[in-house]
Amino acid sequence: MPDKVIFDTAIIGAGPAGLSAAIYTSRALLKTVVIEKVGSGGQAALTDEIENYPGFPEGVNGYELTRKMDEQAKKFGAWFEYGEVNSVSQDGELFTIDISDKSYKARTIIITTGVSPKRLGLPDEEKFIGNGISFCATCDAAFYRNKVAAVIGGGDSAIVEAVFLTKFASKVYVIHRRDQLRASKIVQERALKNEKIEVLWDTVIDSLHGDKKLDALTVRNVKSGALSELAVDGIFLYIGGDPNTKYLSGIGVSLDDKGFIVTDGDMKTNVPGVFAAGDCRSKPFRQVVTAAGDGALAAWSVEKYLEEQEK
Amino acid sequence: MPDKVIFDTAIIGAGPAGLSAAIYTSRALLKTVVIEKVGSGGQAALTDEIENYPGFPEGVNGYELTRKMDEQAKKFGAWFEYGEVNSVSQDGELFTIDISDKSYKARTIIITTGVSPKRLGLPDEEKFIGNGISFCATCDAAFYRNKVAAVIGGGDSAIVEAVFLTKFASKVYVIHRRDQLRASKIVQERALKNEKIEVLWDTVIDSLHGDKKLDALTVRNVKSGALSELAVDGIFLYIGGDPNTKYLSGIGVSLDDKGFIVTDGDMKTNVPGVFAAGDCRSKPFRQVVTAAGDGALAAWSVEKYLEEQEK
Repeated sequence: MPDKVIFDTAIIGAGPAGLSAAIYTSRALLKTVVIEKVGSGGQAALTDEIENYPGFPEGVNGYELTRKMDEQAKKFGAWFEYGEVNSVSQDGELFTIDISDKSYKARTIIITTGVSPKRLGLPDEEKFIGNGISFCATCDAAFYRNKVAAVIGGGDSAIVEAVFLTKFASKVYVIHRRDQLRASKIVQERALKNEKIEVLWDTVIDSLHGDKKLDALTVRNVKSGALSELAVDGIFLYIGGDPNTKYLSGIGVSLDDKGFIVTDGDMKTNVPGVFAAGDCRSKPFRQVVTAAGDGALAAWSVEKYLEEQEK
Repeated sequence: MPDKVIFDTAIIGAGPAGLSAAIYTSRALLKTVVIEKVGSGGQAALTDEIENYPGFPEGVNGYELTRKMDEQAKKFGAWFEYGEVNSVSQDGELFTIDISDKSYKARTIIITTGVSPKRLGLPDEEKFIGNGISFCATCDAAFYRNKVAAVIGGGDSAIVEAVFLTKFASKVYVIHRRDQLRASKIVQERALKNEKIEVLWDTVIDSLHGDKKLDALTVRNVKSGALSELAVDGIFLYIGGDPNTKYLSGIGVSLDDKGFIVTDGDMKTNVPGVFAAGDCRSKPFRQVVTAAGDGALAAWSVEKYLEEQEK
C-alpha cells in the first residue's frame, strides 16, 4: 500500500491490544494500518501457556493465540507494516508516523506499544544479554536441558515461566526480593510443590560473573545483608516492564510518573485523536483479556471521534 | 456445596463478564459461587456468529464460545448454582443472596446480570411472545423456512440476525425508526446487498395483529405519518436492552438514569465489596470482549478488596 494514503487510524504496536483494535477498526471499514516493530503478539506471544484468556479452557500458547488475532485483523483488511517507529508528529488534524525509510499519515492513532522488560541495572548486564540473560523462557528454555537456571521476579510471569523451565532444567532458582510472591495463588501452589524449584526469598542480585557467558551470581539477602555465590547457567528476568512511549514526545501525550499513558475510561488521551490501549496505559492490572477489551474500546472511540470530525 | 459456606465472592450472572470474573477469582483460589438464572452464556449465547471476539479468526458461535468460558471457570473450581436471585441484602460486611429456596453468603459480590431485551410496549405484545414475537433469531430462525420475518432495530445484533434469518426465510424486513443503521459498516454492507432483505426506514410498529399467532403489523412512517399493513409470520425484537438490576434495591448500589450500574474504572460500585462488570454497567460500548475484560478487572478488584479487609 502506498505511503501517500491517509489512513483513518494508525495502530502502533501489534500485541493483543493493537490486534483487537485492528479487528474492530477494520471491521468497521476504517482504513487501518498496524505498525509493528518485530512481529505480532507482543509480550503475550512469548508466554508458553495462557490459562486465563476466556474461551480457551485447555489453555493456549501465547504465540498461537496472538497469531489467531493477527489472522483475524488481516481477514477484515487491516494493513500491516513492520518497522520501528522513530517519532510521531502532528500537523493540524493529521498525524505522521515515521519509521526508518517511510512515513504513514493517519487521522487518528491508537498507541498499543506495551512495555519492554525491565533490566537489573548492573554492570556487564548488556554483555550477558543473549549470553546467559534472557527475557523469554518460552523462547530459550530448551537450551537449559539439565542445566541450572534462575528466574528473577515474583509475579505471575516469573512463576509461570519458572515452572515451565523445570521441564528442561535440572534446577530452577526463583530469586525474589520480597518474602512473598505476587503471583496468583494457583500459580504459587504449583511452583512451591515443584521439587526442582527453590525460592530464594528476600534476595536480590548484587553482581554478575562470567567470561563470555554468565556462569555465576553474587546474591544478597536484603534483610541480613549477607552475600553468597550462586552458580547458574543463565537467568531469566521477569521484574516488570517499562512502557514503550518515548517516541511519543513530539505530540504531548500525558504520561504518569513512570511513563505510562494516561487515558480516560474510553481510552482517550489528552490529545484529541490520540488513543491508547493495553499495557502501555496507566492502570493497575495488565492481562491479555483486559488489553483486548481496551483495544476494542479504543477502536469504538476512534469511530466516534471520526464521526464527530465529519460533522 | 452447603449453603452455610461463606464464599469469598458471589458472581451474579454467567454471561461473558461473569464467566471471565469466575475464571479469575477461582484461579486466584477465592471461594467463588456463580449464580445464574437460566444457563451460562447470557445474551452472547444467543448469537449465531461472533466475528470480533479476538482469538477466533473464523468466527465462533456464541453458545460455543460461552460454553468454553463456562468450562474454564468450572475447571478452576468455581461453584455454579442455578436459580433466580430475588434479593441481595447486606449485614455488616457480609452479603446474602436469596434465590427461591436457599440463600448464599459472600464477602463480596460481582454483578454481571446484563440486560434483558426491550419490548415494544404495545397492546397484545405479551400474548404474541413465543407466538410470533421472538428475541433470538439464532434460536427460532429454523421455524421461518420460506416464511416472512421482520427484524426490529438497526444495531449490530439486529442486522447480523437479519442476515442469519435469510438462510431460512424467503423475505426479511428490517424495520428501523431512523434513516440510517447503527450497525458497523461491514455488517450493513452485507445486509444491504442481500436480496432477501428490505429495510423499511423511518418506520415503527404501530400495532400488532393476529388471532393466536401474530400475522400482520401496522407500521407507521415517522416522517410522513403514513400507516401501512405488513403481512409477516413473525418478528424479532432487537431494540436494545434494559439492565437487570432491580433485585439490587436492598443494598443501595448507584444506578444511572436508565438503571445501569455506575462503577469506577476498576469496576467498583459505590458500595464497598460490591463490583459490577459487563453489559449491566453504565458505559457506552457493550461487546463480548469488553465484558470479559471487565470481568477480569472486577475479579482483580475483589482480590485487592479482600486483601485490604484482612489487614
